[in-house]
Amino acid sequence: MTTSRTLETFEDCLRADAEDPIRAIRDEFDLPVGVLYFDGNSLGPRPHSASACAERVVHEEWGTGLIRSWNTAGWFDLPVRLGDKLAPLLGAGQGQVAVTDSTSINLFKCLAAALSIAKQTQPARRVIVSERDNFPTDLYIAEGIIGFLDSGYELRLIDDPAELSSAVDADTAVVMLSHANYRTGYLYDMSAVTTEVHERGALMIWDLAHSAGAVPIDLVGADADFAVGCTYKYLNGGPGSPAFIWVNERNMHAGRQPLSGWWGHARPFAMEPGYEAHEGIRRFLIGTQPITALSLVECGLEIALRVDMSDIRQKSLALTDLFIALVEQHCAGFGLELITPLEHEHRASHVSFVHPEGYSIMKALIARGVIGDYREPGVLRFGVTPLYIGYVDVWNAVDALRDILESGSWDRPEFRERDAVT
Amino acid sequence: MTTSRTLETFEDCLRADAEDPIRAIRDEFDLPVGVLYFDGNSLGPRPHSASACAERVVHEEWGTGLIRSWNTAGWFDLPVRLGDKLAPLLGAGQGQVAVTDSTSINLFKCLAAALSIAKQTQPARRVIVSERDNFPTDLYIAEGIIGFLDSGYELRLIDDPAELSSAVDADTAVVMLSHANYRTGYLYDMSAVTTEVHERGALMIWDLAHSAGAVPIDLVGADADFAVGCTYKYLNGGPGSPAFIWVNERNMHAGRQPLSGWWGHARPFAMEPGYEAHEGIRRFLIGTQPITALSLVECGLEIALRVDMSDIRQKSLALTDLFIALVEQHCAGFGLELITPLEHEHRASHVSFVHPEGYSIMKALIARGVIGDYREPGVLRFGVTPLYIGYVDVWNAVDALRDILESGSWDRPEFRERDAVT
Repeated sequence: MTTSRTLETFEDCLRADAEDPIRAIRDEFDLPVGVLYFDGNSLGPRPHSASACAERVVHEEWGTGLIRSWNTAGWFDLPVRLGDKLAPLLGAGQGQVAVTDSTSINLFKCLAAALSIAKQTQPARRVIVSERDNFPTDLYIAEGIIGFLDSGYELRLIDDPAELSSAVDADTAVVMLSHANYRTGYLYDMSAVTTEVHERGALMIWDLAHSAGAVPIDLVGADADFAVGCTYKYLNGGPGSPAFIWVNERNMHAGRQPLSGWWGHARPFAMEPGYEAHEGIRRFLIGTQPITALSLVECGLEIALRVDMSDIRQKSLALTDLFIALVEQHCAGFGLELITPLEHEHRASHVSFVHPEGYSIMKALIARGVIGDYREPGVLRFGVTPLYIGYVDVWNAVDALRDILESGSWDRPEFRERDAVT
Repeated sequence: MTTSRTLETFEDCLRADAEDPIRAIRDEFDLPVGVLYFDGNSLGPRPHSASACAERVVHEEWGTGLIRSWNTAGWFDLPVRLGDKLAPLLGAGQGQVAVTDSTSINLFKCLAAALSIAKQTQPARRVIVSERDNFPTDLYIAEGIIGFLDSGYELRLIDDPAELSSAVDADTAVVMLSHANYRTGYLYDMSAVTTEVHERGALMIWDLAHSAGAVPIDLVGADADFAVGCTYKYLNGGPGSPAFIWVNERNMHAGRQPLSGWWGHARPFAMEPGYEAHEGIRRFLIGTQPITALSLVECGLEIALRVDMSDIRQKSLALTDLFIALVEQHCAGFGLELITPLEHEHRASHVSFVHPEGYSIMKALIARGVIGDYREPGVLRFGVTPLYIGYVDVWNAVDALRDILESGSWDRPEFRERDAVT
């Protein structure tokens, strides 16, 4: 597959922006002057509506409503109300999604529930299959559960998506993968992988942190078992905004997750000493949610819901194609190695290059207002977010990259100095 | 113990307010006109500074700083920076506290770590002792862990604090209690109970949800093992603001908690596939925190740190004494039964009465602007928060209660109708 047409000049990019059917949506975001923001895959920018939302929650709901806002502002139902709002972007049904806690915690719940289902139906299966290059916290959580249960579970890691078929066998209880790889942007075929995993008798958990809001997702269509993901990246929910969890209807009541807090109880306000899980997705809630941060998630969701996902996907592929082509044309010979798949069906919405001096090059770019990010080892990562990035933005970003490489201006002490958070 | 003097008339209360050394601190809070707020034990009111803080985080740090704010605004260190700020209010040392996640999740971590320590040192001990009247989520979390581990652990519940001594025996691995009971306000002697539990060879976990910020606490002095608690009650952190976790230095590296996410890793940005826990309290962090909600915690903490805890305690006891005495004098014969201890050493900072029509009486009070809350079964609960409640406020609240009881005005359909969140 290739893009519908080739963009080669700055003027081509100008024209593409002018013809872009979703160009106007960028006006919904606060994009600082002088910044080209290619890090929406890490932290989405602020919707303009977020300030008024924060003011409403902090000033009115908390300040004036006080404790009454649990009822009048609907705080208690917020995780499931937002989950229902998010559901269409995941191909999920109503009542199947909650926005709550962090991705790591939600993955723990899913993995625990999946293992409890596997234990009931296929107790001999003791292997969790994942990928060495999965986002590390996913592996750490699996390690944590395995160590805690101390009942012979094992984490089996593949080094390449091509190894998946041979890794999933009769010992496999659960397969746990990131839909889009955080470093390379490699995108799994959710439907094909899920089908294969099921054929081999295992359960399938997807981490959508780097794909939700960026690519079309059909969890119900793929018949996945569990999914988790992030709202602060492509869904623009705000720094550290609560994550989401999706559970297939057939697993909803079959497994049990041990973080059985009062928000997951059938009658949370009856204050009974014994736990009885609520029907549906609420049983995956734990305790009181950070209402201010949670409320802000709605601003980003409302923007995403106004745009057709097929328009987002088409523009995302056109922009990443352009990014890759321009780097190839203008930055050749400077040692940048593309690690993002060229095939559209395996490309999410960021492009990444490895360079031995990647850290300093990214710091030099950021100092010029082109904000991407850096990931060990040596990865320059550029999030391409069609809601607010245009074709000229890509042109200008690559031009800045070219200039930094040509001039060698990345080779300065201030760009070598490591920040605490990289 | 009794209060230093008896307040009998409205004029006595006026005078007590005028002489109150911490009276001025109430000006730091946004207290709506026409509201007497006796529910700070459930959700503290908004510090005036919270609006500017929310604006700063949402507009500047998120909107303008974008991803750079992980470094420039110190987001990544916020859980431990706030933990260090909170520490003096808990009698905790620096580096021992983190503000993160919810109380239920933090309790899960503590219980898991405690059980892992007990398993290493005294594997035959399989009993967790708690109280049937503990806040339910604490019991649900224990139930969740026990079911998940499936290795013969058992939850043993006492029905009265007096039963504790006989319940903690050679089978007991962990004792897990709320310092202050959420219904009655009964306050355990943290030091004496911890000593006794240790003498019997068990570990001690305290839930400080209803005591942190309200009564003097000395975790290090009492030599407790673990503690968790809440920042949105007496610490005025905002609706659902992240909770806290404290771990005794000797347990910091001895146990392991299975929610081993990347924020707890020794080198979170090295992106290694294997987990290695960070030194100190950071190993009790999991994943990305809700920065907006977390940042707001600082506003409440800064107010609390300006006041001497002995002043808060003295005023709290004077106010609860007054509340109890006025109800006894003015509401006698209407069937209110005090369930809060009269002894100061066993009284936290709320007073509770049982009444068969408690729900409707509380709704009638709230309709008049006297906001307390209701807890099953039949409990009218009044949080007495010395930072912003005065003696005249108590007089007026009890006067409203008297009037509602005398007139029978609680007996209306609108006060019988149950809200979703009670």
